[in-house]
Amino acid sequence: MMKLATIFKSRCNISTQLFNGNNSTQDVFGLHALMSCAGFSTFGQKESNNERIFAAYSVYKGKAALSAEPAPPKFCKLDSGGIRVKRQGYILLSFSPAVAERKYDWQRKQVFALSATEVGALIALGPNGSCEFFHDPAMQTSNAGQVRKSFSIRANPDGTGYFMSLNVVNNIAKTNDRFSLPITSAEFAVMRTSFSFALPHIMGWDRYSSQVPNFKEENSTKVGLKSLSSEWDR
Amino acid sequence: MMKLATIFKSRCNISTQLFNGNNSTQDVFGLHALMSCAGFSTFGQKESNNERIFAAYSVYKGKAALSAEPAPPKFCKLDSGGIRVKRQGYILLSFSPAVAERKYDWQRKQVFALSATEVGALIALGPNGSCEFFHDPAMQTSNAGQVRKSFSIRANPDGTGYFMSLNVVNNIAKTNDRFSLPITSAEFAVMRTSFSFALPHIMGWDRYSSQVPNFKEENSTKVGLKSLSSEWDR
Amino acid sequence: MMKLATIFKSRCNISTQLFNGNNSTQDVFGLHALMSCAGFSTFGQKESNNERIFAAYSVYKGKAALSAEPAPPKFCKLDSGGIRVKRQGYILLSFSPAVAERKYDWQRKQVFALSATEVGALIALGPNGSCEFFHDPAMQTSNAGQVRKSFSIRANPDGTGYFMSLNVVNNIAKTNDRFSLPITSAEFAVMRTSFSFALPHIMGWDRYSSQVPNFKEENSTKVGLKSLSSEWDR
Amino acid sequence: MMKLATIFKSRCNISTQLFNGNNSTQDVFGLHALMSCAGFSTFGQKESNNERIFAAYSVYKGKAALSAEPAPPKFCKLDSGGIRVKRQGYILLSFSPAVAERKYDWQRKQVFALSATEVGALIALGPNGSCEFFHDPAMQTSNAGQVRKSFSIRANPDGTGYFMSLNVVNNIAKTNDRFSLPITSAEFAVMRTSFSFALPHIMGWDRYSSQVPNFKEENSTKVGLKSLSSEWDR
Repeated sequence: MMKLATIFKSRCNISTQLFNGNNSTQDVFGLHALMSCAGFSTFGQKESNNERIFAAYSVYKGKAALSAEPAPPKFCKLDSGGIRVKRQGYILLSFSPAVAERKYDWQRKQVFALSATEVGALIALGPNGSCEFFHDPAMQTSNAGQVRKSFSIRANPDGTGYFMSLNVVNNIAKTNDRFSLPITSAEFAVMRTSFSFALPHIMGWDRYSSQVPNFKEENSTKVGLKSLSSEWDR
Repeated sequence: MMKLATIFKSRCNISTQLFNGNNSTQDVFGLHALMSCAGFSTFGQKESNNERIFAAYSVYKGKAALSAEPAPPKFCKLDSGGIRVKRQGYILLSFSPAVAERKYDWQRKQVFALSATEVGALIALGPNGSCEFFHDPAMQTSNAGQVRKSFSIRANPDGTGYFMSLNVVNNIAKTNDRFSLPITSAEFAVMRTSFSFALPHIMGWDRYSSQVPNFKEENSTKVGLKSLSSEWDR
Repeated sequence: MMKLATIFKSRCNISTQLFNGNNSTQDVFGLHALMSCAGFSTFGQKESNNERIFAAYSVYKGKAALSAEPAPPKFCKLDSGGIRVKRQGYILLSFSPAVAERKYDWQRKQVFALSATEVGALIALGPNGSCEFFHDPAMQTSNAGQVRKSFSIRANPDGTGYFMSLNVVNNIAKTNDRFSLPITSAEFAVMRTSFSFALPHIMGWDRYSSQVPNFKEENSTKVGLKSLSSEWDR
Repeated sequence: MMKLATIFKSRCNISTQLFNGNNSTQDVFGLHALMSCAGFSTFGQKESNNERIFAAYSVYKGKAALSAEPAPPKFCKLDSGGIRVKRQGYILLSFSPAVAERKYDWQRKQVFALSATEVGALIALGPNGSCEFFHDPAMQTSNAGQVRKSFSIRANPDGTGYFMSLNVVNNIAKTNDRFSLPITSAEFAVMRTSFSFALPHIMGWDRYSSQVPNFKEENSTKVGLKSLSSEWDR
């Protein structure tokens, strides 16, 4: 049984992104504001080649419906050239309650955004595994601690699948929502495969592979050892 | 042993697609007609960059031949912008009977379209696993219940592979077709790998990753916590 | 232990490709000549966007060197529109003998082309598994039976990796070449991962996913059940 | 337990790349200078479609921080046409020491570049596995043997994850740096999945799949066996 309790520090994770290779000693949380960065978004643009995609994988059960779809990362253009992940992507899970047979109330839906590491926990689940994640969407604001979300996956004892549950306690709105639905082995296999596909994309690693070779044709010089030495100094 | 019996509600699955994020309480089956949607198809177009692809993976055995190829999803352009999956993709299995040694009668072929979840069941099969799916291609029409298709995969007891079978009972045409052929471990490994590759594509999840970043260069403002807060309100 | 003996019928496999969906009763080997097809090649073109790629994965051991690289399929344009796989891709293994320490004689290299199914056998090998394939590169020519190639993979008893061997008996040239080299678990993991990546590509399945949606904006009609019925008649 | 000790011969691996299919008997290390090659780089270009990407996957623990990101291969254009991998890609691991709670000193970071085979070892690690790699970044220079790096991964006895360590002994600078941090099962799953995704790309195998078919429409001749014979002579 694998049990994970991860406090998802949203702003913490974003802040830590800003330090890669640009400063020496840095507080993981602070000082990121000093880095000037021209931002842009890949998500939700109305540009012809940046349209919002609706292709969620949905599962409809007796008590609730669950949808999953990836959200790509947001990039930022650095003054020194190059682009950086400004905000990590995630896989968004949406839970909606059933109000009657095959009827669901989408206005009462609750969402939970799986980070890359939480996706890693899910895809690595064994047939008897379980994991649980806790989010405070209002962390580091004045409402910190007022809203608490917990998402869990538990294997069925007979190995026929899993139960996925989301619980949202909102002390401001005085609400307590709980959603729970069974996920068959086949449905979990779809999630495992599609989440594994999406993971490098929500991390931005697909950007590394799309670089077109620059066919700068230099003089036909002999390729010797010398021209390679500087690249291996470490 | 894993046994799955899934009633494939074709129109049900399509109808449910139409509700993602657009309405509150919705009957999963009805009311989808109220959503206006400019449709287009990625499949079978005669456009130069949308040509029909013929690249099925085929297996030829003594009693039958089996081909498998993916069919991409169909997209729909929303009035509010963005594109939506109008119809899920699938993996089409085609069975044809042998009439003589290495001769097959393609005119008597029967097909079975694996949904994303059914593909999940197949790729998750253990070495001793089995699964079975039932389709009524005429569901929700006047011919509902008249045609019944069942596709099954059963592991060989000695672990050398699987048997795949398709049975089609057609009460209108008064026919009963049965196809069965052995699949070696190697052939199943090809299916498992290529179906796993195809699965995110038939779900439309490859569309999420092809978004080109919009390099809108804003003023070089400092990236602070404030500009990120609205994205995390949930 | 998994042992596979596959007679690689090159022309057989190509002939069978020509029958998908175009004829009814067909001899798997004959009558393919009746199908007109405008051919083109994706391999070895001198076009700027079709350059030959040299990126083999190579392993250098005491007695032999082994290289592996994928060869994409060749496509054919059909008169009725669409493109078809004219010839399957494969993964080419090249063996060269060592003549001295870290010196290899590439002029004496021998090759073995793994078909999609043979790649499936390799990637599905368990830690104690083995498999063997037999090819006659001159099959169905006047030299049939004169050249015999056999490629085998055998697991080391201690689980530290595999031995890969190629034997080529050429009765015309009166030669008998044998190559054998150890492959560590790490090197096999590279092959398993890169061959799994390449498999859908050598099958041509990556062509299915690259179809750009045709944004034909029809009148904003309501999407009802009626427009979908014809697609599900089977 | 799987233990790997690999001496990473950087220049050796690069030299060996230069011999694929171009010469007969070749010293793996020498004579590569005779091959003229117009070089270009896909890495670090300032071209608009070749910008440097910053999307490392980072893990922050009590004593150290670890980042991982892929570095694409460098290509070279051959006089005879085609492109060749001039230098293999790798996955760069960066370790930085913690100086206070959630504060890391990036100026004291040390790096370790995993080759394709070393990535293979990592992704193939079992739940109880371990592996270790040794690098001499100054190999085959006058400073050979002066700097010694060792990177190791060891499974936790209770199966909750791994410990990753990097030790750098620099006899020139008289320094001895040691970094060690725990990696949870979820974090390792992210690495296994993202490294498996990156592996074909750092090998250059993604270049094989991006070839656009050249629709040279020949006369609609019948496709017979004759036109295919030459392709199978081996």
